[in-house]
Amino acid sequence: MGVCILTESELRSVVGVDTQSLDAVATAFSWLQQGKVNMPPIMHISAREHHGDIDVKSACVEGVPVVAIKIASGFFNNPDRGLPAGSAMMVLLSAETGFCQAVLLDNGYLTDLRTGMAGAVAANLLAPKTVHTVGILGTGMQARFQARCLALVRPFQRILVWGRGPEKVRQYAEDMQTELGLPVEAADIETLVRQSQVVITTTPSQKPLVEADWLHPGLFVCAVGADFPGKQELQPEVLLGADRVVCDRLSQCTHNGELQHLCVEGALPPAFLVDELGELTTGVKPGRGKESEIIICDLTGTGVQDTAIANLAYQAALARGLGTQA
Amino acid sequence: MGVCILTESELRSVVGVDTQSLDAVATAFSWLQQGKVNMPPIMHISAREHHGDIDVKSACVEGVPVVAIKIASGFFNNPDRGLPAGSAMMVLLSAETGFCQAVLLDNGYLTDLRTGMAGAVAANLLAPKTVHTVGILGTGMQARFQARCLALVRPFQRILVWGRGPEKVRQYAEDMQTELGLPVEAADIETLVRQSQVVITTTPSQKPLVEADWLHPGLFVCAVGADFPGKQELQPEVLLGADRVVCDRLSQCTHNGELQHLCVEGALPPAFLVDELGELTTGVKPGRGKESEIIICDLTGTGVQDTAIANLAYQAALARGLGTQA
Repeated sequence: MGVCILTESELRSVVGVDTQSLDAVATAFSWLQQGKVNMPPIMHISAREHHGDIDVKSACVEGVPVVAIKIASGFFNNPDRGLPAGSAMMVLLSAETGFCQAVLLDNGYLTDLRTGMAGAVAANLLAPKTVHTVGILGTGMQARFQARCLALVRPFQRILVWGRGPEKVRQYAEDMQTELGLPVEAADIETLVRQSQVVITTTPSQKPLVEADWLHPGLFVCAVGADFPGKQELQPEVLLGADRVVCDRLSQCTHNGELQHLCVEGALPPAFLVDELGELTTGVKPGRGKESEIIICDLTGTGVQDTAIANLAYQAALARGLGTQA
Repeated sequence: MGVCILTESELRSVVGVDTQSLDAVATAFSWLQQGKVNMPPIMHISAREHHGDIDVKSACVEGVPVVAIKIASGFFNNPDRGLPAGSAMMVLLSAETGFCQAVLLDNGYLTDLRTGMAGAVAANLLAPKTVHTVGILGTGMQARFQARCLALVRPFQRILVWGRGPEKVRQYAEDMQTELGLPVEAADIETLVRQSQVVITTTPSQKPLVEADWLHPGLFVCAVGADFPGKQELQPEVLLGADRVVCDRLSQCTHNGELQHLCVEGALPPAFLVDELGELTTGVKPGRGKESEIIICDLTGTGVQDTAIANLAYQAALARGLGTQA
C-alpha cells in the first residue's frame, strides 16, 4: 500500500525521445478513437493574484493499470525571479482500487515529452514524405522537444527558427545545431513558412503569427502553442485555406486550440470538417494523400497522453526498482 | 525547491477535531462568500471497468500561500477484497509560483475532517440551542466524524444510529459510546428522526431515507451523503417542507447534492430560496431564528474546504519540521 515517489532524474533515466514513447502516444490517440477512454474536460484553476494558471488533466483507459492525474502550472511572474514559468507533476492512482500508487515529480518533463511526441505522431501521418526544411516558431522547451521528436519520423536537413528574443534565438540555434548535427538558422516568420515543408508553432502568442498568404503546396503546419482560451498562432484563414485540418481532441480544440477562433458560440462552421488524430492512428481515416496537400494539425494536449506516458514511465521504473516508498 | 512528503500519521499529529480546524473550515466558507476564491467545477473521472469514481477538487484563495488539488476515489469492488472503498490525497502547489510544495498522503483523513467540520459549522449556525438527541444515518467514517465534530459546537445527551448492517450499527454504538461517553442506541429511521433535534445523514443512498411526515418543529437536518448525481437521502418534500434550506455551494448542490432532485433542467423552482453557508459565516444572513424552525443543510464538499484544511495542516507540519523532502 506504499506510494512510490519518483524524481525527475529517475524518470529521465527510463523514458526519453525514442520510438517506445512515440508508440505510447500514438496508441493513446487510438484508445480515444476506440472508446476505451474516460477523459473529463480540463480543470482550470486561475491564480489571478500571482498571474498564474493551473490545469488538471486526466484519463482512465480500459486495460491500463494506472490513471494519471496531471497537474500543470504556468505562473508568468516566475521569470522575473529567475524561475521557469511552467511546471508539472503527476499523481498515479491504481485503476483497480483508486489508491495512490505513485507520485511523479517530473517538473514537467513527461508533459514536454508527450507533447513533443504528439507532434511526431501527427507529422508521421501528415507531413510530406520528403522534408528538407523545418520551421520552428518559439525557442523554449517545446521548440526543442518538437524538433527532437520530429527527427524520429522524418529526416530533415535544416531548421529555421523564429522567436521574439534574439538571444534566445541564438541560444536555440546553437543548442539544436549541436544536438541534431544540422544547420539551424534564424529567420523572419514569412521566410520561415515559405521555405519550410513542416512548420511547428510553439509560442504562447495571443494573436496570429502565421498568415494564410504564406501557405504553399506540400506544407504541414503543426500548431502546438494554443492550448487555452485566447491563445492563437495561426490566422483563421490558415485553417480555412488548408486542404485538411486534423486535431488531437475536437471538444478541447474548439475551446482551447486554434479552432476556437473559427467557432461561433462554440460551434465550427457547418461544412468545416476536422479529423481527430485517433482516426488516423487507427486507420479509420488515411494520413496525407497527395504530396501537394496543405495540412494543419491543432494540438492542445490531452489527458490520455499523460496516462500513456506516465504508465510507460512508471512500469519501466518499477521494473528497474527505482523510486522511494513513502 | 524540494517537495515535502507528509504521511497520514504526521498529518494526524498536527490537525484534528478541534476549534482550530472548525475555524479554518468556517473561514473557508467566508472566503467563498467574499469572492476571494477561484473554485472550478469538480472534475470527475469514471473508472467503469472497476466500478470506480475519481473526483478532483481544488480552490485558489487570495492570500493563502498554497493551492490544494484534492484527489478522492471511491472504488466499490474494494470491500470484496477487504480494502476500504474510499481514499484520498492532496497535492499542494505554491500559490505564488505554481511549483509543487507538498504531497499529503493522508489516505482521506483530511477530507473526513473537513467534511465533519462543515457539518459542525452548519450546526453551530443552524441547530437549535438545546440539543438532547442526535440522530445519525450511516455507520461509516463520516458518521463518526460528524458526531465528533458536532460535539465541538453543541452538547448533547444521546445518539440514535441507523444503518443497513446490524453488526456495523452495533460496532458504531460501541465505539462512539466509549469515545463520547454518552449512550448510543440503534433505532429505525422514523423513530430516529422523530426523537432527534439534529439529524445527520451520511450514507451513499440513491433513494430517500428521510420522509417529510417525520419532520417536527426545531429539527435541523444536515445531509452529507449526497455528493454525486443520483445520490439522495431526503425526500424532496423534506426540502420543500422546511422553513429554510442552506447549502455549501449552490452550483454544486444543484448537480450533486439533495437539491439536484428539486431541479428541472438544472434549475430550482423559481420561488425556492437557498442560502449558502458563507452568507451565514460572514453574517450577511442570520443563523437560526426561532427555536421551532425546521432547517435543512445540503453539503456536497468543496475545494475551498480542502485548501483551508490542507493549508492549516501543512503550515503546522512545517512549523514542527515534519515531512520528508523528495
